Amino acid sequence: MLDNIRIVLINTFHPGNIGAAARAMKNMGLSQLYLVEPRVFPDEEADARAAGAKDLLDSAVVVSTLDEAIADCQLVIGTSARNRTFDLPIFDAHDCARKVVGEAEHGKVAIIFGRETMGLHNAELQRCNYHVYIPANPEYPVLNVSAAIQLVCYEIWQAHSKQDFIKRDEPYPLTRDMERFYVHLESALRKTHFIIPQHEGKVMDKLRRYFNRSRPERTELNMLRGILTSIDETTSQLADKQETIQSQDKGSDQ
Amino acid sequence: MLDNIRIVLINTFHPGNIGAAARAMKNMGLSQLYLVEPRVFPDEEADARAAGAKDLLDSAVVVSTLDEAIADCQLVIGTSARNRTFDLPIFDAHDCARKVVGEAEHGKVAIIFGRETMGLHNAELQRCNYHVYIPANPEYPVLNVSAAIQLVCYEIWQAHSKQDFIKRDEPYPLTRDMERFYVHLESALRKTHFIIPQHEGKVMDKLRRYFNRSRPERTELNMLRGILTSIDETTSQLADKQETIQSQDKGSDQ
Repeated sequence: MLDNIRIVLINTFHPGNIGAAARAMKNMGLSQLYLVEPRVFPDEEADARAAGAKDLLDSAVVVSTLDEAIADCQLVIGTSARNRTFDLPIFDAHDCARKVVGEAEHGKVAIIFGRETMGLHNAELQRCNYHVYIPANPEYPVLNVSAAIQLVCYEIWQAHSKQDFIKRDEPYPLTRDMERFYVHLESALRKTHFIIPQHEGKVMDKLRRYFNRSRPERTELNMLRGILTSIDETTSQLADKQETIQSQDKGSDQ
Repeated sequence: MLDNIRIVLINTFHPGNIGAAARAMKNMGLSQLYLVEPRVFPDEEADARAAGAKDLLDSAVVVSTLDEAIADCQLVIGTSARNRTFDLPIFDAHDCARKVVGEAEHGKVAIIFGRETMGLHNAELQRCNYHVYIPANPEYPVLNVSAAIQLVCYEIWQAHSKQDFIKRDEPYPLTRDMERFYVHLESALRKTHFIIPQHEGKVMDKLRRYFNRSRPERTELNMLRGILTSIDETTSQLADKQETIQSQDKGSDQ
């Protein structure tokens, strides 16, 4: 079950932090490490800090985009300082673990940690269903990234070994299915002229935020896709009709 | 109140771990760092890893023995792998925090972390009232020392901010008062010949373990000291009597 939980590190600058992350994970029974464009990897300092968790570095999956790292996940959680403007629902590390362990029974879960200096970008936070924060001294709340991973993994181990988790039975769509939905949604909304090329604004960002937050279940997503298909059909019937009218108009001109 | 809680690091080998410890502490509202014979300190790597917690390094207290670091504490907790042979009462990190925060209302508390490679020696564990362990993956339970500090401090911050602690009102003696008691005890037991120079064995170690574990309150310790004083008086009266008898014997010889 813990093998369904992955830790994703984005653009890690210090390879020592990757090693420390691997050790922190293995100490708490986790094994799935994903690295999105690390600055340096593999690296001697990473190996040294990993100590007895070198096997996690050997099996780490290095990818070039966050999307690749989370495509097969049904739950994506981003770490964040509290009170971000981008207001996804937020857990502390303890409740996050109870959520993660409950869902890992059914599918894959990713927890994403950002850069040492600037955390996660907004575009990355938009890929998430929830945020997690670590309760800390408000005068100096910025934890080292491997220390944050240690705490999040510790809470996961606690929730797992005490069997204290939030149970959830409905299956959720994978991230890649959500991405296909967004592509479909955008195309449908262009056809209905809800999105028009001259004034696109941030409408897709806003819709993505809404749907990631509301987290449709798999059957609900199928229903939404059905609605989009019905819109496709309506717009294409409309186009047909307009074509017919135009050709009739041309016919009547002749 | 959190200022009554100190973290004591013994013989730290990597200065980076001292810096990471300082950051972990400050993130969780702690400030009192004691270093017993660090290999290298101060150090650039320590400063770098401390990040915004450099002030804790500047105010760290460097001492040459553990006794100096804990003399004014009323509660001393040693970190340890589970199932040590030296069987003090043991807490996990969560309950340890509830204990520590409860006692820090009344006096100073030390939590001791050992060397990177070998933890605490037995003589050091004997200075402790309790052990604390961090629940971890049994296949690889050995945490980096700064990661362990991060977790222990996180649980303290949680217990403090949620006001979830074990309340305790009786005042406890300071470590230095316990040490005076052990000196007195040993001297009294030599006078009663419970300890005899030819066969000292580990009797003082065993008694220290017993009393540290039973943790007499301050009034109880005063009572124990009173008993020792009464033994002193008895043995000195006995010595007087023996002297008198001997001089009488000599007198009768003449």
